Amino acid sequence: MTKPMVGRDTKLCMSLAARPGTFGSRFQNRLYEMLGLDFVYKAFTTTDLPAAVGGIRALGIRGSAISMPFKEAVIPLLDSLEASAAAIDSVNTIVNDDGRLTGYNTDYSAVRTLLEDSGLAPDTPFLLRGSGGMAKAVAAALRDAGFTTGTVVARNAAAGRAIADTYGFAWRAETGDQGAPLLVNVTPLGMAGADADALAFPQDMIAACTAAFDVVALPAETPFLKAAAAAGKQRITGTDVAQLQALEQFVLYTGVTPTPDQVEAAAAFARGETD
Amino acid sequence: MTKPMVGRDTKLCMSLAARPGTFGSRFQNRLYEMLGLDFVYKAFTTTDLPAAVGGIRALGIRGSAISMPFKEAVIPLLDSLEASAAAIDSVNTIVNDDGRLTGYNTDYSAVRTLLEDSGLAPDTPFLLRGSGGMAKAVAAALRDAGFTTGTVVARNAAAGRAIADTYGFAWRAETGDQGAPLLVNVTPLGMAGADADALAFPQDMIAACTAAFDVVALPAETPFLKAAAAAGKQRITGTDVAQLQALEQFVLYTGVTPTPDQVEAAAAFARGETD
Repeated sequence: MTKPMVGRDTKLCMSLAARPGTFGSRFQNRLYEMLGLDFVYKAFTTTDLPAAVGGIRALGIRGSAISMPFKEAVIPLLDSLEASAAAIDSVNTIVNDDGRLTGYNTDYSAVRTLLEDSGLAPDTPFLLRGSGGMAKAVAAALRDAGFTTGTVVARNAAAGRAIADTYGFAWRAETGDQGAPLLVNVTPLGMAGADADALAFPQDMIAACTAAFDVVALPAETPFLKAAAAAGKQRITGTDVAQLQALEQFVLYTGVTPTPDQVEAAAAFARGETD
Repeated sequence: MTKPMVGRDTKLCMSLAARPGTFGSRFQNRLYEMLGLDFVYKAFTTTDLPAAVGGIRALGIRGSAISMPFKEAVIPLLDSLEASAAAIDSVNTIVNDDGRLTGYNTDYSAVRTLLEDSGLAPDTPFLLRGSGGMAKAVAAALRDAGFTTGTVVARNAAAGRAIADTYGFAWRAETGDQGAPLLVNVTPLGMAGADADALAFPQDMIAACTAAFDVVALPAETPFLKAAAAAGKQRITGTDVAQLQALEQFVLYTGVTPTPDQVEAAAAFARGETD
């Protein structure tokens, strides 16, 4: 495969994160290459967010992924918020149209799309564990996908109650004994690191559920998702979310929609499964 | 040749110009590729220089070429000037060391090196046509290479006299009849465009000189340089300057010095002579 060299007219897309990962760079660059687009993608970090965003505008950088801890702080630096970002006051994507910066949240929109495409009836009750920024995005996506009956489970009472109140759900501090047909984990439980062995929901709750949704993407198979697979349950995975939100960023930046096969191939490459 | 994909740890270098050319991108990227360096080079333009330079600092962009019309305006945005830029109050290169921006002028240093390596005796008298920023750089380089006796020829009396006075040379408005052993063109005469057919110095002056120096790089063979070649004169060309200053930028950014063969190959590629 021949790769055209980065030249004068190549468009740059980027990411801003305290600790840049590799998925975004590999996924976007691989798709540019597969589709013959004159784009290049590069991950950055910064200690000066206003200057970094000013640089995106002044240099005509086409777009940027925005990760922790910049998702809220970036908002006053933009010209407008699209509905996906306005819904949760959190931006994970900037699109630069001739110096005009618009904030999007493709985590929210990807989760919403996955819920809408899941076949789960909107009256399916859910338990959502977590109270951080991503929990807020998932709660908003649940509400906007039509889910009406759910409980936010979070030990942080202030944050958990705020999300529950904002989106019209119940709150409780502990998982307790009462499960739900849809179990959603938006905590680090099961994530590579200290909590890698933790099961986000009790085994009997998983056995009794209809569908398991884990936003943790590393590892792809968390203990929660493994248990759900073993019990033959429907799953929505962190890998699904990561891949779909990255695809939505790609489409926003380039205006080009790759085929599902191309997306699968680029995502497999980005995860290191293929060379 | 395999090109490693731009990834999380790839260093970005860039250029800022009102009208970006292609030489820099092609030269630098080709050398990165030949030497297996994890760098990528991208040309940018901007209408907001302070924000663009702020972005270089905030995003950790390793370095930037600075072209017209930003060479003087960029100075107050930097942390320090290296001697080459301080000598002429003009910056064509920024190096970013962990957020600390230093301005260099590799046009000045390349011209100085070419003069010092020319074998011309420092007491060789010269005529220098031009009064713009590059004329100032060449006048400073002439002085600092030891040339003591010369005349700046410029219709713009204020600019021409200022350069002559600053570097200890004479000034006159018109080329006139009196030539010199070293003829230096730093005007657009002979450059692709409206002045493409113009001969920077009269034919008889070229016939009588020892060496012809033209800073015009596009085309590589200006009428002045062609006439000098036909008359069997020593030449210093705009191509020499462009190539050496780009090499100095490369070394400043990467800390790596390519071999002369590698430089020639990358420059030939950048000029479009090879694929």
